[in-house]
Amino acid sequence: MNSFDLLWSQLEPIGRNAATGGYRRFAFDPAELECREWFRATATARGLEVETDRNTNLWAWWVPAGVDRAAPALVIGSHLDSVPDGGAFDGPLGVVSAFAALDAVRTSAVVPDRPVALVAFADEEGARFGIACAGSRLMTGQLDADRARALVGRDGLTMAEAMTAQGFDPRALGPDPERLARIGAFVELHIEQGRNLVDQGAAVGVAESIWPHGRYRFTFHGVADHAGTTRMVDRHDPMVAYAHAALAADEAARASDARATFGRIEVEPNATNAVPSTVHAWLDARAADQETLEALVAAVGRRASDGASRSGTSVELTTESSTPLLTFDVPLRDRVAAAVATTSMQDRVPVLPTAAGHDAGILAVAGVTTAMVFVRNPTGISHSPQEHADADDCRTGVDALAAVLTDLAQ
Amino acid sequence: MNSFDLLWSQLEPIGRNAATGGYRRFAFDPAELECREWFRATATARGLEVETDRNTNLWAWWVPAGVDRAAPALVIGSHLDSVPDGGAFDGPLGVVSAFAALDAVRTSAVVPDRPVALVAFADEEGARFGIACAGSRLMTGQLDADRARALVGRDGLTMAEAMTAQGFDPRALGPDPERLARIGAFVELHIEQGRNLVDQGAAVGVAESIWPHGRYRFTFHGVADHAGTTRMVDRHDPMVAYAHAALAADEAARASDARATFGRIEVEPNATNAVPSTVHAWLDARAADQETLEALVAAVGRRASDGASRSGTSVELTTESSTPLLTFDVPLRDRVAAAVATTSMQDRVPVLPTAAGHDAGILAVAGVTTAMVFVRNPTGISHSPQEHADADDCRTGVDALAAVLTDLAQ
Repeated sequence: MNSFDLLWSQLEPIGRNAATGGYRRFAFDPAELECREWFRATATARGLEVETDRNTNLWAWWVPAGVDRAAPALVIGSHLDSVPDGGAFDGPLGVVSAFAALDAVRTSAVVPDRPVALVAFADEEGARFGIACAGSRLMTGQLDADRARALVGRDGLTMAEAMTAQGFDPRALGPDPERLARIGAFVELHIEQGRNLVDQGAAVGVAESIWPHGRYRFTFHGVADHAGTTRMVDRHDPMVAYAHAALAADEAARASDARATFGRIEVEPNATNAVPSTVHAWLDARAADQETLEALVAAVGRRASDGASRSGTSVELTTESSTPLLTFDVPLRDRVAAAVATTSMQDRVPVLPTAAGHDAGILAVAGVTTAMVFVRNPTGISHSPQEHADADDCRTGVDALAAVLTDLAQ
Repeated sequence: MNSFDLLWSQLEPIGRNAATGGYRRFAFDPAELECREWFRATATARGLEVETDRNTNLWAWWVPAGVDRAAPALVIGSHLDSVPDGGAFDGPLGVVSAFAALDAVRTSAVVPDRPVALVAFADEEGARFGIACAGSRLMTGQLDADRARALVGRDGLTMAEAMTAQGFDPRALGPDPERLARIGAFVELHIEQGRNLVDQGAAVGVAESIWPHGRYRFTFHGVADHAGTTRMVDRHDPMVAYAHAALAADEAARASDARATFGRIEVEPNATNAVPSTVHAWLDARAADQETLEALVAAVGRRASDGASRSGTSVELTTESSTPLLTFDVPLRDRVAAAVATTSMQDRVPVLPTAAGHDAGILAVAGVTTAMVFVRNPTGISHSPQEHADADDCRTGVDALAAVLTDLAQ
């Protein structure tokens, strides 16, 4: 069994739900802690120095003898957490491929002239506390530590409480400029979350840009009441206003070639025979440019307000996160593409935009020279158990990352 | 402190949520079991014979010396469970008033010539397993025992599993014709779930009828996918179809002077950055007549199907429960109203229809002679912490029930 297959088989069962086939690895929950243990054991077995930074991101350092520890490091990696019932590849493919690429480079007796680090960023999906890329945002100062500590998760615990319960110190959260300054370049390998590489017949590609995107919480306030005895004219039913907003999101995104999704909703008290008192609904919106994104969110907001007025309810709109258009560093992208081309058995390495956020995007915003490598996903489906990558394409991804490591670390 | 106030103060803290002020007393959960203990202790302290029937309904029997145990009994009572974050009165007011009325009758040295029973029916709200009036439906054969045992609650446990975990025997569930035959008449006192008594300036009234009503589960099946990378045209988003159904329910109910509510929704995986795979939504629908109810549900079903077709999803519609129009026994109603009129300081006892289901309705369908007494609710609001009854009106309710007991038990 090769290095990738062995590591993959170790990680694969952790946090997998037998009923759905999907993964449930949420920040600081038992499955995610088990993934952290796997990272630690895997790195330790390779003689790497493991550390958990103040924002709970995991690092494994390879500093060959004679190399200046303070020199700008080459960092590769991704994340280990998942969305609820997500697929096996989103995140873990990048971490496992990083270890396998490191093994391949060492086997070929390449010795880097600078530090190399493998990273697993914490809470990339934001499935528990609602903020995506929390670990990299905290490190780069794009998420305020007080705000992060106070975020309330699905189980009612704050991030600070959840961290404390697992032995992490929430007081340590915050910007980490020294660590950031050590990153010479960051290359994140990730499964593609669409069918671009399928359409182009390529196993791997490189990222061009990340669409501007954001998460917006709509809270519709009504009055709980009996579902039978309350006349329709006497109601203040927040579900009706929400339904207007949900249809508006779908229509506005279609009209502007953008994306809008209400994928999460929490209803209080959520009883069949009670008019709800409150509906919380989260809008995920993305577009090719900032202007289109803002127009989309504004359109949904207007229809939500109209629906609220008409149903005797009110709505609050809170921007939970907002990320502008990000274009990856062009020289690094071209160098990565060239390195990939030497190994991937492809005459051409596609350059792709993506509508998904990534830690690589957060680091790029913070001024880090950053690139991404995508691996083909035959279904094109993401954030679902149907997400997939063929074994051959995974191996091509490892080869590509090893070539990048060989090229950039020397 | 009088009997009612003392008993009320004992029951009031059980299952009360400090944050919302609402009650969470769900079948076989700790708060509901504590309510059962209260019932048992209260009845035992009065020398009543307590029993839990095969369907977990609680009974307390008063069979005075010389009275034929087999004679048709007069039964009074209601239920102890609540909807999520329901009010304090819906259910418990009828049980506490029954004990207080019994105390009043005994103080006045009235001795009945037939058995008297106090009852607390199990799982009236159906908040945990989705079927309202489960205890009385099982007893009367209106809910199949196999179906009940297999019902899956919010926490993933079946009713059978939840019962077993608390020492109840799920194999015992089923029709109980001997017990049913012992009920000569059933009178349920209940807080009004609307403003009819407020409008008529009366503390108490009696029930005329219960509207036909039902619960309908809509399951929208789509495909989970990434909220950012999946183009709108490639989606199979069940939330969009649900939104169409939710608006249709509101519009159709307004157009036909009926009631329609989507108060409960469960989304899978319920992640901000994932298109949902499935949306389960429960429609509570009620109307003054059967034809209007059926037309209403059909209209919502059509719009749900249209919405599903247009969004590349599918919808399943399951009738979880359906209860026809129920008119309470007119001679008993008039006799109860006459007895109430002797005590309630009202020159007139209003006769009210209601759009809420009750165990009294379930028993009436099964052929039991049944009546209901309503107590004024100043807010008119129900299934909410804002539900309320003034202390004076509660006392009038107890007096009314004592008069009914005195009249009917002799």
